[in-house]
Amino acid sequence: MINVGIVGYGYWGPNVARNFHQTPGAKVTAICDTDQKSLCRAQADFPDAELVHSYQELVLRTDIDIVAIVTPVSLHFEIARLALENGKHVFVEKPFTASGAQAEQLIELADRKHLKIMVDHTFLFTGAVNKIKELLDNKILGDLYYFDSVRVNLGLFQKDVNVLWDLAPHDISIMDYLIGLPPTTVTATGVSHFNSNEDVAYVTLYFPDNVIAHLHVNWLSPVKVRTTLIGGQNKMLVWNDLENDEKIKVYDKGAYHDGMMMAYRSGDMWAPKVPEGEALKKEVQYFLSCISNDITPINDGRAGLRVVRVLEAIKESLKWRGAPVRL
Amino acid sequence: MINVGIVGYGYWGPNVARNFHQTPGAKVTAICDTDQKSLCRAQADFPDAELVHSYQELVLRTDIDIVAIVTPVSLHFEIARLALENGKHVFVEKPFTASGAQAEQLIELADRKHLKIMVDHTFLFTGAVNKIKELLDNKILGDLYYFDSVRVNLGLFQKDVNVLWDLAPHDISIMDYLIGLPPTTVTATGVSHFNSNEDVAYVTLYFPDNVIAHLHVNWLSPVKVRTTLIGGQNKMLVWNDLENDEKIKVYDKGAYHDGMMMAYRSGDMWAPKVPEGEALKKEVQYFLSCISNDITPINDGRAGLRVVRVLEAIKESLKWRGAPVRL
Amino acid sequence: MINVGIVGYGYWGPNVARNFHQTPGAKVTAICDTDQKSLCRAQADFPDAELVHSYQELVLRTDIDIVAIVTPVSLHFEIARLALENGKHVFVEKPFTASGAQAEQLIELADRKHLKIMVDHTFLFTGAVNKIKELLDNKILGDLYYFDSVRVNLGLFQKDVNVLWDLAPHDISIMDYLIGLPPTTVTATGVSHFNSNEDVAYVTLYFPDNVIAHLHVNWLSPVKVRTTLIGGQNKMLVWNDLENDEKIKVYDKGAYHDGMMMAYRSGDMWAPKVPEGEALKKEVQYFLSCISNDITPINDGRAGLRVVRVLEAIKESLKWRGAPVRL
Amino acid sequence: MINVGIVGYGYWGPNVARNFHQTPGAKVTAICDTDQKSLCRAQADFPDAELVHSYQELVLRTDIDIVAIVTPVSLHFEIARLALENGKHVFVEKPFTASGAQAEQLIELADRKHLKIMVDHTFLFTGAVNKIKELLDNKILGDLYYFDSVRVNLGLFQKDVNVLWDLAPHDISIMDYLIGLPPTTVTATGVSHFNSNEDVAYVTLYFPDNVIAHLHVNWLSPVKVRTTLIGGQNKMLVWNDLENDEKIKVYDKGAYHDGMMMAYRSGDMWAPKVPEGEALKKEVQYFLSCISNDITPINDGRAGLRVVRVLEAIKESLKWRGAPVRL
Repeated sequence: MINVGIVGYGYWGPNVARNFHQTPGAKVTAICDTDQKSLCRAQADFPDAELVHSYQELVLRTDIDIVAIVTPVSLHFEIARLALENGKHVFVEKPFTASGAQAEQLIELADRKHLKIMVDHTFLFTGAVNKIKELLDNKILGDLYYFDSVRVNLGLFQKDVNVLWDLAPHDISIMDYLIGLPPTTVTATGVSHFNSNEDVAYVTLYFPDNVIAHLHVNWLSPVKVRTTLIGGQNKMLVWNDLENDEKIKVYDKGAYHDGMMMAYRSGDMWAPKVPEGEALKKEVQYFLSCISNDITPINDGRAGLRVVRVLEAIKESLKWRGAPVRL
Repeated sequence: MINVGIVGYGYWGPNVARNFHQTPGAKVTAICDTDQKSLCRAQADFPDAELVHSYQELVLRTDIDIVAIVTPVSLHFEIARLALENGKHVFVEKPFTASGAQAEQLIELADRKHLKIMVDHTFLFTGAVNKIKELLDNKILGDLYYFDSVRVNLGLFQKDVNVLWDLAPHDISIMDYLIGLPPTTVTATGVSHFNSNEDVAYVTLYFPDNVIAHLHVNWLSPVKVRTTLIGGQNKMLVWNDLENDEKIKVYDKGAYHDGMMMAYRSGDMWAPKVPEGEALKKEVQYFLSCISNDITPINDGRAGLRVVRVLEAIKESLKWRGAPVRL
Repeated sequence: MINVGIVGYGYWGPNVARNFHQTPGAKVTAICDTDQKSLCRAQADFPDAELVHSYQELVLRTDIDIVAIVTPVSLHFEIARLALENGKHVFVEKPFTASGAQAEQLIELADRKHLKIMVDHTFLFTGAVNKIKELLDNKILGDLYYFDSVRVNLGLFQKDVNVLWDLAPHDISIMDYLIGLPPTTVTATGVSHFNSNEDVAYVTLYFPDNVIAHLHVNWLSPVKVRTTLIGGQNKMLVWNDLENDEKIKVYDKGAYHDGMMMAYRSGDMWAPKVPEGEALKKEVQYFLSCISNDITPINDGRAGLRVVRVLEAIKESLKWRGAPVRL
Repeated sequence: MINVGIVGYGYWGPNVARNFHQTPGAKVTAICDTDQKSLCRAQADFPDAELVHSYQELVLRTDIDIVAIVTPVSLHFEIARLALENGKHVFVEKPFTASGAQAEQLIELADRKHLKIMVDHTFLFTGAVNKIKELLDNKILGDLYYFDSVRVNLGLFQKDVNVLWDLAPHDISIMDYLIGLPPTTVTATGVSHFNSNEDVAYVTLYFPDNVIAHLHVNWLSPVKVRTTLIGGQNKMLVWNDLENDEKIKVYDKGAYHDGMMMAYRSGDMWAPKVPEGEALKKEVQYFLSCISNDITPINDGRAGLRVVRVLEAIKESLKWRGAPVRL
């Protein structure tokens, strides 16, 4: 039996706890939160778990193998460091840390202690991302041309972070997984209308081989949009994550040189069945299996670090109204 | 009777010619094109018009009051200059000229000769843009927050210009008209997959008062999108130009400070009836009325110059992968 | 405190129980089901409720004021009759009974005993139906022309009833509420592809004043549709129940005589904010308030009877491939 | 060279004329209309054609091989009869005739004279119907379960015919072609709100082998809908004729017996490329080729008769509010 301690039982913590608990071979042993109301909720959900008020206490418990950190990002480093030092594997919310330097230190510590880190890039475990990965790996799309993602809605404004640190880690981790190469240059623009944190922002990422990616994140959109266009040499796809039944549409369309002129090809469209199932459940099962079999997760600390580095470059570029930042 | 000479009878020229000809008080007197097939088509469409092979010949004709220039942008300056020097009013395709310096010279020349220039920013004469202008002028949206436009489809690649010079003049002229202030800083990113001209590109424009605008233009998209989001303090709207019946949706939605926290408001949606009718027809009628009544068109040479200056800044920024360019 | 006994804890029963229990002034005292697994679930959900194996036992309990009947329709009559005879108010699933004669007997019994019957026509308590009722009552639509409803999806085939007895009670009860008059003639067509129960069916209902209504119900549709068109003299509306944000669209459109010819009018579209909230919760609260204040519910036994009579006419018409049945 | 005489140059006549004229080997020789304005338009469009004021005159001309009848249905029989008697092939608008008896007489006459009749069931020549026919012929859908068509919009009310005689011939001819068997029983319901002609109507058609078809036609709908659902044992499809790019979606979905229970299957969706091109052009070319090669058109007089017989049954059923009429 693998025992899991949960630090943070706010909005997302209960989902993490529930999924660990429902996975055979694991159980939630202790839950920590500084908010009394959250602790009461934890007690109702997990009557057999110990409730503790400080993460320092939780990470010292000997009946815990994994610490799941579901707190604001400013606390990730300190809690993860203590957990690793006390011999616990770490499951941590995205973004991994508040800086690349912190991430590097945690990676080094985990390596030294032979412990696993998993950063909760949940989207990598959705049926949609898995299907797109499969299409790319099987060269269905051909050489990649671009990746364009729109993630906009009304609210929810976060305290202390801007719309990029809130929403962009999803897209950056998906891109990192699908493109398989880090970007070389990043440029970001945006403005804030209510305080110093941007609520509308745009990011361009230049990748090797003429691949370009772009994000539009916005907390002030009247409509909710979760749409990604991916263009390839042979096929192009639209991933609309708000669709229930036809999340991914693959278009047999393309442009090519026909002697002197450009010509266009337009064939069938195909919406492959996208497997259902809770992504977080698959992710948590995968983490347990990585621990049992000593496998490095795809979303390990290094993946988390790559995302944080892009976020740092975004921050820098944003300051200078889009000045390109090389990675 | 006002007589119109058409220079260029390719894709768009026939529409310009037809609309001038159908306007009471105007007729197409002469048409010029270097391509024999285009001239044959012109003859079939306008049996009474003179066909000439060089624009030099056309601009010298004494039976012409307006020269409509519907050629590649590289020719605009030279033809417009000759036309103005020979005392003709000028109707010219967008973008106005290939450089700001050229535009300034034409404006100065027209002013001196008391002639009118109209740059064909057709979208300003659509029912949709007029309705949005009306909503903004009547303060229905409140203070403007952002303007976000997506104009993507598969093809048509243009020779000699990139996707920005091809598609962005639409959005830049609309923005110029709706926002009513020039941008202060521009940043542009993009890549090309087939030759040296970008086929996927992104532009951010910073305006005074924390207004931000953004364009996404793309010749390699599997789906055609023509969607603009406009966010204001009181209301937000979505303009989907591909919709027949509900082109503009106005959302009574917003975010506001509720003490310490952000709160959100979500009320009715309203799709005002958008007047129909061919925009180019209204534009041409307006030009004739500007000439008769000695009125400066909203889309005069200075409006054309403002668009060209943004295009020049985009070109510069693109070269440096998004480096901000101040205007 | 009003005590509620639940008969039937299958698919819908838990929702009914939860909503009664969460309403201040009411609690679930006893739950009955013949299936052991359902009873276990009931125990987990309501640890303080008594679990009983037969409805005969439940209706005899003196600590129960309301019996909620959430069983197959074939059992409704017998359970409701016993409940009423034992002085309990009755909340019963739709359709009310298997025949009009049964419904009449229950209504008579309830009247004699001064007890309330509420038939669970849940849709009458949705924000959408309330908004449409308001639009009709305020004469926004003008005289009603037609009511057209499509309720199709893949599955779920029900044992023992056809697609009409399964899905049509929703629409018939909504129509009954919105139109406010019973239909005069009913005709129904349909076929079955798997057993003797129709899986695709169509119903036309003729109402007074030239109002026509139509239903399309289908268990074999590749797409899920829940769309109702309502046409009036002044305005027309589309209610798409699968939309989250714009469930009801009111069109300022119409046709009228313009001398000899028909003419058409097309103005704004307007999507009023539709109140959210669980319909069943509002319904249950309303039932408790009807009991406390001795008010006849809008969805009382007589409303239930009207729906059953239409279902009986449908059954009869279906047998004769659409022969009209007068009510 | 095959010479074509056009009778009727109102809304649709010009399209028929243009397509005949543009087909190599055919030309429009004479045009007849009783309206002077229509004749003027004809003269402008076809300067070389003779304009005549009566169809009697036109059908007697010896320089005509085909008479195309594009008039109200009440005139079809008389004009077609004269044309056939004078040795002309006949191309005639849908519906073929005002009664089955008239259709039979024309068929007999054409047979006797070895002349061709083509009824303008244009939809049979669209890319969409051809693609669906191909899917059915190749048994992609499996055994047919149902055919459900919705054809609704605001207007255009026709004088003298109801919404069924106006719109339903489209669907009935498509069904006739796709299902390949005549219906056995028809039932129709509807009401009229402005005069004695129905403006909202519904038709159910029972076919052999448990196949059911249904039409909803409506001149009073706030939204335009052109959607057909076709359910088969193996696959189901949705044909949305208002879509540009994904007109036909084929769903790998189905229901089947899994022992005692019904089970459901849900796989990929596939939108095959639908060939573009003007249907009427293909139809006219096909007619010329049928004449040259002495082939019986799929949309010959007998196909026209089958549609008229269904329309007659509809008329009869409508009178009795849905009473089933056997064919």
